[in-house]
Amino acid sequence: MADEPAMPDRDGGLVRIRIDFAYDGTDFSGWAKQPGRRTVQGVLTDVLALHGPGGRPPVKLVVAGRTDTGVHAVNQVAHLEVVEFPDDADDLDRLVGRWNRMLPPDIRVFAARRVPVAFDARFSALRRHYAYRVTDHPFGALPLQRRDTLGWFRPLDDGLLNAASALLVGEHDFVAFCRRREGATTIRELQRLDWTRLPDGVLVARVSADAFCHSMVRSLIGALLAVGEGRQPIEWPASLLRATTRPGTVTVAPPHGLTLLGVDYPPDDELASRAERTRNLRQLQVDD
Amino acid sequence: MADEPAMPDRDGGLVRIRIDFAYDGTDFSGWAKQPGRRTVQGVLTDVLALHGPGGRPPVKLVVAGRTDTGVHAVNQVAHLEVVEFPDDADDLDRLVGRWNRMLPPDIRVFAARRVPVAFDARFSALRRHYAYRVTDHPFGALPLQRRDTLGWFRPLDDGLLNAASALLVGEHDFVAFCRRREGATTIRELQRLDWTRLPDGVLVARVSADAFCHSMVRSLIGALLAVGEGRQPIEWPASLLRATTRPGTVTVAPPHGLTLLGVDYPPDDELASRAERTRNLRQLQVDD
Repeated sequence: MADEPAMPDRDGGLVRIRIDFAYDGTDFSGWAKQPGRRTVQGVLTDVLALHGPGGRPPVKLVVAGRTDTGVHAVNQVAHLEVVEFPDDADDLDRLVGRWNRMLPPDIRVFAARRVPVAFDARFSALRRHYAYRVTDHPFGALPLQRRDTLGWFRPLDDGLLNAASALLVGEHDFVAFCRRREGATTIRELQRLDWTRLPDGVLVARVSADAFCHSMVRSLIGALLAVGEGRQPIEWPASLLRATTRPGTVTVAPPHGLTLLGVDYPPDDELASRAERTRNLRQLQVDD
Repeated sequence: MADEPAMPDRDGGLVRIRIDFAYDGTDFSGWAKQPGRRTVQGVLTDVLALHGPGGRPPVKLVVAGRTDTGVHAVNQVAHLEVVEFPDDADDLDRLVGRWNRMLPPDIRVFAARRVPVAFDARFSALRRHYAYRVTDHPFGALPLQRRDTLGWFRPLDDGLLNAASALLVGEHDFVAFCRRREGATTIRELQRLDWTRLPDGVLVARVSADAFCHSMVRSLIGALLAVGEGRQPIEWPASLLRATTRPGTVTVAPPHGLTLLGVDYPPDDELASRAERTRNLRQLQVDD
């Protein structure tokens, strides 16, 4: 091969591929393949199996952020393993083009490329970035925005939302905002949480963390909306960080306002150590 | 009545109402009511008839811009005539709220208010503003943008698009860009036509005119895209203004990239003279 990568890229004859893609989650029952349901993993696997690199189905498909039913992604990342993969950039473009012609318009693949075998879309990720969109317009979301914007029928105060959000940033045990799973840690580092009101009046929360446990972003948003409408004091969401179980008072915000914006990875030479560290920390049982 | 308007607002016992509303045109067969088709006028009329002000169906529903199948609106304007209408702001809010609860989520009414009888949503309009969205990303529109953004599979040059657009601005006979109707003028004043590339790569054309003949915006966009991809010279769209019939070489761009942004009206005391002038100029046969 002309361009031997610095890291090994074959593992028992398999080549590891990273794909970057986007979807409108409205008509999917989330990421994970389920019998009888239309899921992102299911639709992608079907197309890759029929039109895979080298004409063979991929061995597995692991995603960075396993989104729930109705949640969207503008830049999701997955890895898969295949027997063969084009080395030539033109062949690669043709392959991605073929996938997009076969995929329904609510999924688009932007890029596919060979990565070191140490690249794990889920466990190598350094951090995930999400956005949550909500409008407090009295008559709800604009028709063209209704698929990814929650309508909130009471006025929301940007200042209250931001003040309560700032108190949540940092490394905490987010058990109050996590759906409990046995044996899994709920300690996460929340790196960013703030709100911006766009010129059209839509409020956008930007949320970044090393990782999120299940329903964590939507639970945080649910608690913050109670503050934004004046129903709870600014300190209330942060006070829940002292809880040792999930309180019944936190409402999980609806999924359709949530969009995965992107995922960050370390340089290639740190992939293996990052994945090792994440696996140990989170004991393989935790969500993204 | 406490707030007698300066202009008469009753005409044979009827009160004239202006409504401002938005829709996602994807699942509508355009504006105009047609048997057996789901249209914006049809859905609105059904809801207003059942839940009209004063419990009676409106007499008519006249729109500023009669959009085609698949075309969207973020601020469309219509007028209707009713026997009764709430004078109290709270009652009015309740009425609009009731409409929105009955309307499907792809139509939202923002406001309804009594206007002088001289207000004609179509003929009093001073100008209409449209946007056309197109992406030249090799794999088409992002899933969440695919309803209002055209995918163009060849690269588009912003400079060429803007240079060709500038030559079209002004008062011209746009017969080359109009679907012909007998006895109707095709002279229009194109007041704005320019392109901006957004940070996400989507190109947005802003198009404003006193009025547009049928399929005019989409024909202009179709001609300009041929310039933007380098298939026609910069001067070509403007050279068609010298044509006396519609040439076969102009392609009408697909409807789903087109959105009506808004409609301007003169002050109340100029409504009647504006409508009179428009009716005379356009002989009642012309599109918006």
